[in-house]
Amino acid sequence: MTQLVLVTYDWVPEPPRGLVRDLRVRWALEEAGLPYRVESTPFEDRPAEHIAHQPFAQVPWLTDGDVSVFESGAVLLYLAEKSEALMPKGARPEATEWVFAALNSVEMATQPWVLFHFWGVDSGPAREQFDNFVKLRLDRMEPVLAEREWLVAGQFGVADILMADVLRVVDKFDGLKAHPACKAYVDRATARPAFQKAHADQLAHFAAADAARA
Amino acid sequence: MTQLVLVTYDWVPEPPRGLVRDLRVRWALEEAGLPYRVESTPFEDRPAEHIAHQPFAQVPWLTDGDVSVFESGAVLLYLAEKSEALMPKGARPEATEWVFAALNSVEMATQPWVLFHFWGVDSGPAREQFDNFVKLRLDRMEPVLAEREWLVAGQFGVADILMADVLRVVDKFDGLKAHPACKAYVDRATARPAFQKAHADQLAHFAAADAARA
Repeated sequence: MTQLVLVTYDWVPEPPRGLVRDLRVRWALEEAGLPYRVESTPFEDRPAEHIAHQPFAQVPWLTDGDVSVFESGAVLLYLAEKSEALMPKGARPEATEWVFAALNSVEMATQPWVLFHFWGVDSGPAREQFDNFVKLRLDRMEPVLAEREWLVAGQFGVADILMADVLRVVDKFDGLKAHPACKAYVDRATARPAFQKAHADQLAHFAAADAARA
Repeated sequence: MTQLVLVTYDWVPEPPRGLVRDLRVRWALEEAGLPYRVESTPFEDRPAEHIAHQPFAQVPWLTDGDVSVFESGAVLLYLAEKSEALMPKGARPEATEWVFAALNSVEMATQPWVLFHFWGVDSGPAREQFDNFVKLRLDRMEPVLAEREWLVAGQFGVADILMADVLRVVDKFDGLKAHPACKAYVDRATARPAFQKAHADQLAHFAAADAARA
């Protein structure tokens, strides 16, 4: 009986498809080979039930019986306790620090930069400062990723899912050209069958919603 | 014998004093009553030893014998395993989700907004978008904080240290005026003796460095 339920939107517009954060959770579940099912919550008119599970009215969240967890970082650390494919025994402190490095050091610089692209903020002092901030973070990640295949304990894990997902979006906007080790890391992470399946499943999920609306 | 060592800069310029992230770790250690000592690493000319502990050349990091942990979020979750004053038994999933909510949902909006204040970005499309983004997050936190004293399991803990520290900086720039429950939460968190001591200790640490330089 499948107990793990991943909840995402029933539909999203075209631009964020392939980027919605349920992808991080799908990827982890596929890497671990944990059985799960996907349920939908309305993108438009988000009900109180949604806010009860995710107070920012975003997705994803995961339920595991009576336990409900939101925030992709928290969901991945929760799943990591269930599978050594996501975090080897004894590696919790190191895995945790790199999960936060992805989400609070690197994404803290890259997400505003990505949003500026979506919003058409092509110049000005804010854009220039964030161009520099992104470069500062990538300059620090470059030697780390040049000397190791994966971030923690010599094996792929939850920190890689998050770091690669963060850097993948930078790459979409041609932001890794001066950082070949970061680019190679994104390429080898996204070549994994679990990423490929997670990505295809997300696209198929939203495409099915289009068909249902048509 | 004190095994926990918190490492921060030997000195910082005036503007970030009271905001350096070692404060989050000091606060947690004081709440838990865990013995620790503070060591310094040079703010200028950061040595390779620094990068070995903190690959982004930032502070803080914590050592516990052979274990070394960076990222304030990871350090607090690490300390939470040592003290029920920081996280009650069985509350790990819920504490973890709120830690990420503070650092990846709320601070993701507020840190750029705070940086714009430091950088003098007072107008323009980037500033307007982030004014809206901060409001969106605070609008979601307001009902949460109106109905509970602390975020997790009815007691103060690591998620409150991080959320209150994130919101405290917004308050410094008068950003909580339309969100009284957020403001009241910051006030009751920062009234705690452990915060007061942590804050005074950070200011004293950097003031001592001024004296040594004079």
